[in-house]
Amino acid sequence: MKVGYLGPESSFSHIAAEKVFPKEELISVGSIVKLFDMVEAKELARAIIPMENNTGGSVAITLDELLEKEQFIVGDHYSAINYCFLSKNKENIAKIYSHPQGFLQCKEWLKNNYPDAELIECGSNSEAAKLASETGDSALAGKIAGQTYGLELITQNINDSSNNETRFIIVSKEQLDPKGGEKTSCFFALKNKPGALLDSLQPLKENNINMTKLESRPSKEVSWDYIFFIEFVGNLFDEKVQRSLEEIKKYTTHVKILGSYSKL
Amino acid sequence: MKVGYLGPESSFSHIAAEKVFPKEELISVGSIVKLFDMVEAKELARAIIPMENNTGGSVAITLDELLEKEQFIVGDHYSAINYCFLSKNKENIAKIYSHPQGFLQCKEWLKNNYPDAELIECGSNSEAAKLASETGDSALAGKIAGQTYGLELITQNINDSSNNETRFIIVSKEQLDPKGGEKTSCFFALKNKPGALLDSLQPLKENNINMTKLESRPSKEVSWDYIFFIEFVGNLFDEKVQRSLEEIKKYTTHVKILGSYSKL
Repeated sequence: MKVGYLGPESSFSHIAAEKVFPKEELISVGSIVKLFDMVEAKELARAIIPMENNTGGSVAITLDELLEKEQFIVGDHYSAINYCFLSKNKENIAKIYSHPQGFLQCKEWLKNNYPDAELIECGSNSEAAKLASETGDSALAGKIAGQTYGLELITQNINDSSNNETRFIIVSKEQLDPKGGEKTSCFFALKNKPGALLDSLQPLKENNINMTKLESRPSKEVSWDYIFFIEFVGNLFDEKVQRSLEEIKKYTTHVKILGSYSKL
Repeated sequence: MKVGYLGPESSFSHIAAEKVFPKEELISVGSIVKLFDMVEAKELARAIIPMENNTGGSVAITLDELLEKEQFIVGDHYSAINYCFLSKNKENIAKIYSHPQGFLQCKEWLKNNYPDAELIECGSNSEAAKLASETGDSALAGKIAGQTYGLELITQNINDSSNNETRFIIVSKEQLDPKGGEKTSCFFALKNKPGALLDSLQPLKENNINMTKLESRPSKEVSWDYIFFIEFVGNLFDEKVQRSLEEIKKYTTHVKILGSYSKL
């Protein structure tokens, strides 16, 4: 089975992919959009994709692709993320490469150590390490990326939060059997009336379903309107989940179910 | 009065700053974090800062800085954003520079026109135009940035949504008189019990207060816990707003008020 991850080699996504899929063929892909496109074209059976980090928050492009594509979440995976300060030339730290999430997750450390460095955002952390190696600059990335691209490890664990974690989702074009999955993810598009969000969430509360995540994203159809990404504890086959979803339809124009799944 | 904007010169922020503050001294600043820091140090009386776009969504770092700093929102401003495809060398389009929001807002156009180009994320759109000019590559940025940095205008209005708009906020260390402001922004940190978000929003609904925005961001204190950024129509001096906020305190550990303000 071909499983795509956000590359290049030695990215945090790559390390997560090796843990979740130790026996599968892992394919490095250059961007999150391309990962979803390749799953859509069935060039990949699965993709492991960063969804959110407990310091940096959600990855907007992942949410937008989940909304746009007809794909399913078939599992998720939490991985500890330890950023390192890596350099090709520690005498001259003028430019630092990282993923935007790297800069968010190491904000305090950067402010205290290199407040005047030029920060250059890259598509992934391993890409940042690769570029820093090529240009003779520095990067915030993982230890293994530093080894792969020949950077010197200057400081370890520079993330602001010592228990820095990223949650990855595993997406697939086919919905796997959702039975047994503990968590359900979906999008709600609300009817255009005041209080619709609150009304739409009420059935979850009334059925004692614990909502674990709520994110808003711009609706692509109506300017300054929003669509909501919601996760809750419960399986699509649970009677109280089915009852809630029926009730929720009264307040929404569309509910898109992404699947019930478990941690991998 | 010194007003900071996200530079360099000719960024969308610069154009917005010229509209809102035509008579003030405008200062180009390299990052959103530095804008907040300079307002904090009173080196700037105001900063005009991108908050959200109707295609790309909220700017995470802006929300996080609003949560962290003791500053106020004293106005907002909506500005039409037209991305252009600009190039120093149209015979060889291998690398395209833009702000991450530029890539989000022109996603379809990129996919249809340059699916294989290397996308390089920069701190602002004008920074992207400047870099493309220096390296002989291409950029997604505003027309004026293209003129400023000597790039050829290849295609105009390439954003996926034809009514692409960015909302900027104006922040200040001092709270201006909030009387008359139509909109209020605040953060809620919720008590750790199921249904707390719904309970905390109920008073707004009961008092017929229209919530216009709800965003979640990671709590910096508890791993995988969230804090909510909420906006509603109404002024802090309105009796029904005061009544709601009193009620809301029952379900929150902390409410941080950012101010009531109007469009500028």
